[in-house]
Amino acid sequence: MPPTSRTFRAPRGTRDAYPEDALKRRYITQAWRDASIRHGFDEIEGPTFEHLELYTQKSGDEIVSQLFSFRRQGGDDDYALRPEFTPTLARMYAARANSLPRPTKWFTAGPYFRAEKPQRGRLREFLQWNCDIIGGLFEGSGFVTDETTDVDRIDQDAEVIECIVNLLRVLGIREGDAFVHVNHRSAIEGWFTKQGVSASSIPSVFSLVDRRDRIPAEEFRRQWTALGLPLETLSEYNLLCELVRSGPNISPIPSTGGPGYISEAGPFGVILLPNRLAELNMGEWFWSNPALVRGLAYYTGMVFEVIAEGERTVCGGGRYDNLIELFGGPPTPAVGFGMGDVVLSLLLEDKGLMPQGKDLLDAVSRPQASLRPDAFVITADEQFDSVVKRTVATLRAGRESEAWLQRDDRKPWDADRYAAAPLHARRSYKATRHIGKLLKDATSQHARHAVIIESDQVCNVKNLDTGEQRENIALTDLPAHLA
Amino acid sequence: MPPTSRTFRAPRGTRDAYPEDALKRRYITQAWRDASIRHGFDEIEGPTFEHLELYTQKSGDEIVSQLFSFRRQGGDDDYALRPEFTPTLARMYAARANSLPRPTKWFTAGPYFRAEKPQRGRLREFLQWNCDIIGGLFEGSGFVTDETTDVDRIDQDAEVIECIVNLLRVLGIREGDAFVHVNHRSAIEGWFTKQGVSASSIPSVFSLVDRRDRIPAEEFRRQWTALGLPLETLSEYNLLCELVRSGPNISPIPSTGGPGYISEAGPFGVILLPNRLAELNMGEWFWSNPALVRGLAYYTGMVFEVIAEGERTVCGGGRYDNLIELFGGPPTPAVGFGMGDVVLSLLLEDKGLMPQGKDLLDAVSRPQASLRPDAFVITADEQFDSVVKRTVATLRAGRESEAWLQRDDRKPWDADRYAAAPLHARRSYKATRHIGKLLKDATSQHARHAVIIESDQVCNVKNLDTGEQRENIALTDLPAHLA
Repeated sequence: MPPTSRTFRAPRGTRDAYPEDALKRRYITQAWRDASIRHGFDEIEGPTFEHLELYTQKSGDEIVSQLFSFRRQGGDDDYALRPEFTPTLARMYAARANSLPRPTKWFTAGPYFRAEKPQRGRLREFLQWNCDIIGGLFEGSGFVTDETTDVDRIDQDAEVIECIVNLLRVLGIREGDAFVHVNHRSAIEGWFTKQGVSASSIPSVFSLVDRRDRIPAEEFRRQWTALGLPLETLSEYNLLCELVRSGPNISPIPSTGGPGYISEAGPFGVILLPNRLAELNMGEWFWSNPALVRGLAYYTGMVFEVIAEGERTVCGGGRYDNLIELFGGPPTPAVGFGMGDVVLSLLLEDKGLMPQGKDLLDAVSRPQASLRPDAFVITADEQFDSVVKRTVATLRAGRESEAWLQRDDRKPWDADRYAAAPLHARRSYKATRHIGKLLKDATSQHARHAVIIESDQVCNVKNLDTGEQRENIALTDLPAHLA
Repeated sequence: MPPTSRTFRAPRGTRDAYPEDALKRRYITQAWRDASIRHGFDEIEGPTFEHLELYTQKSGDEIVSQLFSFRRQGGDDDYALRPEFTPTLARMYAARANSLPRPTKWFTAGPYFRAEKPQRGRLREFLQWNCDIIGGLFEGSGFVTDETTDVDRIDQDAEVIECIVNLLRVLGIREGDAFVHVNHRSAIEGWFTKQGVSASSIPSVFSLVDRRDRIPAEEFRRQWTALGLPLETLSEYNLLCELVRSGPNISPIPSTGGPGYISEAGPFGVILLPNRLAELNMGEWFWSNPALVRGLAYYTGMVFEVIAEGERTVCGGGRYDNLIELFGGPPTPAVGFGMGDVVLSLLLEDKGLMPQGKDLLDAVSRPQASLRPDAFVITADEQFDSVVKRTVATLRAGRESEAWLQRDDRKPWDADRYAAAPLHARRSYKATRHIGKLLKDATSQHARHAVIIESDQVCNVKNLDTGEQRENIALTDLPAHLA
């Protein structure tokens, strides 16, 4: 007997995307992909489901109730739909650690799943973008000395944030619309240790403060004291949180004083990061947030969240120097972030930054970032290292035209927006100063041009396809020479 | 106590894609997307899992053992990872049937799942591309008369095949490398009815012959007689299958004679399709295959498979005029196909048609198909309808340059391949001949140019952004005017 007609709905917390919505998703995923490529990340993809144990290995058995888990009929392996990418990334990196570049820079974007109660901004199926920089520090790799380790770590921390900030800029979110809230594991952990919290209780305390905005004040207070913390410390903690709400802290954080949250971070903790971001021309995005937690059991250093108007968290990440080892790899430092599409879409829609109709078709049809680096920036002279980094950052960010900036009705997807379009720029992570070896590095990464920094004003540009070299080009004219 | 280090693998039958593999996936998915867009399909996306009942509604309870099914801890809804897209498509179409265009042309590409034993060419997680044309025939929509219904149905059947053939061409697969094997439900059903199979036994018989190549001849023979079919009919059936192996049947199939498989198909069954494909300049891809089954319980008319060297099935599809109704929608004709990435990738790798290294980076960095139609082709004169269809097909296919065709080392991703690149071309599906109304249709679809066919040689081209119109353009010069 043929079945009778009946109607069905999408599962609760999932979405059907009809053409206009599917295009808006693509507008976002394409911007994610372009930003990743321009910042030198390579795309990878993992399975949509994994062995359940991959997630309990990282997060313990409590995670199981938040997962969609299953086994095959008649089979005996337990699987789960992936709730996040990091365990897959750690597994994939560990499996090939010895043959991968140092650092390895990977991005991925796809569907993720949470078996939680759906609410505004949180769905059971959503898209997420991940970028991670893995390795390249204190690994005896021969090109990084111990002395530079911390500086290089700040460089990597800054580079993942640079990628996010340039993504937000491309989408039309400006300085002041959103901030990168930054904290350091040892800062917040040190503060709680001072209040008498034992090392073994730290995870419970973090779990509580992580839920601070989601539970009533009275209940928070009850759990605070239940954990053995005196009530006086709660008012000091609340002061810490209030400080954060009062405004961004752009200048370098003082290394002493204040609520005492910084002295444990050491000289290279979060102190160098705002300087580094200022050098990348994104100092105004920095916000020191001593109350930020982000489930620190897993993070080992810097943690951050991008928080936009309405206290909406657009993305979060941090440094996790122990995780690759937990998944069977060698000790390997790593830093990365995840950004979902749900909050970001709501933000763009609310701010009139989501194109519609013909604009949307045009925006999604634009050429994508080139997978071959437009520029591979090198120098023979150590004193111009900072010029190399600044040049890479400038090329990646692009430059908006004055005419466009002065228009009242300007939109981020306008075809005339850029005087210099954002480019795919890379630099060598090798310590050598030998131009021949650096050019070989550029060629092996299939760069179109090598940009050889000669001073803080000029460079030579070598076309790596033709071998032709142009000399004494002003750095301000560089984008035109690469276009 | 911190967990100890351990290693993990990807679940059996799933894949980790490191950068080079991820790029190859993108090479394929981008080609899928470009082909879909150029043929006027709009992208949609559904959830990665659905209510389990969505699949049992279409395929009965037997499907459950082939699915990864699950429920949320503490929840009571049963879900399953999607094994195919069609039930989601039917659900989504049914939910908005009244407000969608006629026909609606949708495509989608993403991950799908089968809980089967993995083998070469069949994985538990794979990518699949779907294109479907839904509605636009015998729906009292006011612009299709009963007399044209069958011709329009053949047009739609041909259009989905056109999209596949142009995809294969772009990837470097030529006439003769693969064929579109076509059959008609009533043809194969009629043949079995003649052998004395009752209507109620047809599904069991189809289920058996669908597995013909996967079970030993002796076992096939046993099951054949167990179904009540005489052994003599098996040799006639085998003859039918051998005929298919002997070579493609390019010319229209005779409507009588042969093993009697065609007389039930009616004048418009599969008979007009090869002619229509020949008009689209893809007649050499057609292969009449009277033994083709494809689980006909679900199909209602034409069924097809693209079969390449080594008898590898690259994709399959057909007409399913009853399915939308089964999912609560109005009676709605539909035709579509699904193509996986696994067999296609193996085929491209084996034939040296998968780019590597710098070629791969370049190929994936090329501009994508424009979401705005490059050309919307119309005519005021019914006698030029076939010129409209031919012009659309010519623009979609593009034209390879003579110089490239004569090179021995040519590759499908060469930058100099096309004298005229494949374009996004559409035509109106409205019956009106009023140019003003047709131009309105072009504008509402955000076309860049309207191409107004004036004869079988010339057209006028109106730039819909500027309003500028150029007249008396030879059809052979049209691509240059649109570029």
